[in-house]
Amino acid sequence: MHNWILPENIADLLPPEARRVETLRRRSLDLIASFGYELVQAPLIEYVDSLLTRQDAALDLKTFKLTDQLSGRQLGLRADMTPQVARIDAHLLNRQGVARLCYAGPVVHTQPDGIMAAREPLQLGAEIYGYAGVAADVEIVELMGECLKLAGIDHVHLDIGHIGLFLALADAAGLVGEAREAVFHAIQQKDVPTLMGLVAGLDASLSAGLVALPGLYGDATVLERAEQSLPRLPEVIEALAALRGLTTALAARGIVPNFDLAELRSGYYHTGLVFAAYAEGWPNAIARGGRYDHVGEQFGRRRPATGFSLDLKELAWRLPATPARSAILAPDAFDARLADAIRALRAAGETVVVRLGEIVDVEELHADRELIELNGQWQVQPL
Amino acid sequence: MHNWILPENIADLLPPEARRVETLRRRSLDLIASFGYELVQAPLIEYVDSLLTRQDAALDLKTFKLTDQLSGRQLGLRADMTPQVARIDAHLLNRQGVARLCYAGPVVHTQPDGIMAAREPLQLGAEIYGYAGVAADVEIVELMGECLKLAGIDHVHLDIGHIGLFLALADAAGLVGEAREAVFHAIQQKDVPTLMGLVAGLDASLSAGLVALPGLYGDATVLERAEQSLPRLPEVIEALAALRGLTTALAARGIVPNFDLAELRSGYYHTGLVFAAYAEGWPNAIARGGRYDHVGEQFGRRRPATGFSLDLKELAWRLPATPARSAILAPDAFDARLADAIRALRAAGETVVVRLGEIVDVEELHADRELIELNGQWQVQPL
Repeated sequence: MHNWILPENIADLLPPEARRVETLRRRSLDLIASFGYELVQAPLIEYVDSLLTRQDAALDLKTFKLTDQLSGRQLGLRADMTPQVARIDAHLLNRQGVARLCYAGPVVHTQPDGIMAAREPLQLGAEIYGYAGVAADVEIVELMGECLKLAGIDHVHLDIGHIGLFLALADAAGLVGEAREAVFHAIQQKDVPTLMGLVAGLDASLSAGLVALPGLYGDATVLERAEQSLPRLPEVIEALAALRGLTTALAARGIVPNFDLAELRSGYYHTGLVFAAYAEGWPNAIARGGRYDHVGEQFGRRRPATGFSLDLKELAWRLPATPARSAILAPDAFDARLADAIRALRAAGETVVVRLGEIVDVEELHADRELIELNGQWQVQPL
Repeated sequence: MHNWILPENIADLLPPEARRVETLRRRSLDLIASFGYELVQAPLIEYVDSLLTRQDAALDLKTFKLTDQLSGRQLGLRADMTPQVARIDAHLLNRQGVARLCYAGPVVHTQPDGIMAAREPLQLGAEIYGYAGVAADVEIVELMGECLKLAGIDHVHLDIGHIGLFLALADAAGLVGEAREAVFHAIQQKDVPTLMGLVAGLDASLSAGLVALPGLYGDATVLERAEQSLPRLPEVIEALAALRGLTTALAARGIVPNFDLAELRSGYYHTGLVFAAYAEGWPNAIARGGRYDHVGEQFGRRRPATGFSLDLKELAWRLPATPARSAILAPDAFDARLADAIRALRAAGETVVVRLGEIVDVEELHADRELIELNGQWQVQPL
């Protein structure tokens, strides 16, 4: 096999794509900063115990494992950044009030999410720690929408759901271990026949509730149907109230979501409200988020948390090209006045390329002007 | 052990440091772009065969290995980016003329270079492919100096050397395998007694040359001493001519280097001229570079190549803080005119933070103004 071949679902970014991604990265981080979010940067490798929170067998499977030669302990190559940001909020920042944090960096997956999915997304995200109210979720949904607009995506379909519904029903039914996993997957796949078989022995109202979840998909009438078909457990009432609260707040901003109460895979560590953004022409969600309250508990601080993330490489893919800046060609000769002229042009925002050897193909240099000496002065002239 | 503890020589960047690193990253990439370099982005993981070029046992030891679940083949987590950029130049871009490429991204080392060294540098670099002349090396040295100035380092000590001297002597002496490694290390460590023992059985002029290398350290007189003490092999003559050429070109620009003809560790794949920048207060080199001609050969294209790299995190560490932008506090209430006012302020470059719950500590928000409604108008007032 040729050694220039990359692993499956792994790719280079050549100059046109790298420029697009860099432009989108900077604009997105600047936008997020204008909402008051502060940038943090966590490492690519950590002890596996820190990277993986309790609930996430799926995240565990996605995480490459390494052996630390210094400690002999197992390291993970991060497959997600939210557990790291939760650690930073809980243990390092220890802010008294609300903390708004953001990040941008690569994550690596052992297996792609789908046949076309990248195994090395460039994850951008924003998170709010320390506020349980729906206003935090609304801000995250708005900010996600603004980021997607930067990527040229103006029309977004927003799906919202609440993982607390499944958790409440599964807990009340005493589902644990493999049985719980099997029910989870059947709901996720909207596979009602399998689901009916799995829940056949459970309490009637709980099994009816679990079987109802895959059908609770569509417009605002979903919430009414959910109130009728789900048992009135306290956590169910709370989850439906949170969904209503978010819906009302989004409506005031002109955002009308779809509901999908069987959506359970929005994240690995999510516990409550979840949302996903879809757009025309993209088969999968282009941004995801939701509540992961108390994710920091394992790091010593139990705080409410909500956030979103997206893959900058995936979004930049369809952006119009960021054109290379047109350059000025300069001779390869040392002369103090030439050096001054080049320095001044670069400081003024121009690209100045020094000619090295024969120019085989002037288009490769993106040059449209050149620096030439006229009457003892270095001047810029069209090529 | 607490799960918030990071592995040794691995660290988070909290907001003040993350801001500094991000600022330096953007300014450095913009500066490098103004010299005509194009950004590329290679993946964090590749097949080990692609990441490791033939000569680099040291780079191999620094590279974490992973198993690819899709192919069953061995992957490496990159410990350096130059072999990747060489692959891109050789196989993907295939430019007819000179290619100037740059990159910025994390690399990971199994072991730190020293007790204080980070295992996850944020590597920034610039490379010129396709030009063998000294003008390319001069441009790289100049650009490295400009990048260091951006990091506030105006006074740099430049060491230059040439790995071709050792290679020529070792090849002529027929040194291979462990014997060659041992001589390499003794020269690198300037351990002359050990070196004398190792070369005792070799041809007299070659062993004298190898023993002379560690002493060839200092100002421009080093080149004269080298001409007297090294055997006049063609590659030696060529290497000394390259050193003279670079010295003359640098002198015209007011740069007076030191020489260190025993410096062999500047990179893993270097083959010719090498250089390293040192500055007051930094125990180790803060930027390194040199020639790695023909590194692309394994990817199907033999081209001259020269470049430099540095660690943005290491350099940003001592920069003055990039202050957080002062923010405007806004109420958490939905009102179309308030939303418009917030949007306009953010678009004008302001940071607007929405108040979520009680403000426990206003300093945490970096806010100095607030949006309040006065006479039916939303206005910015001092806090």
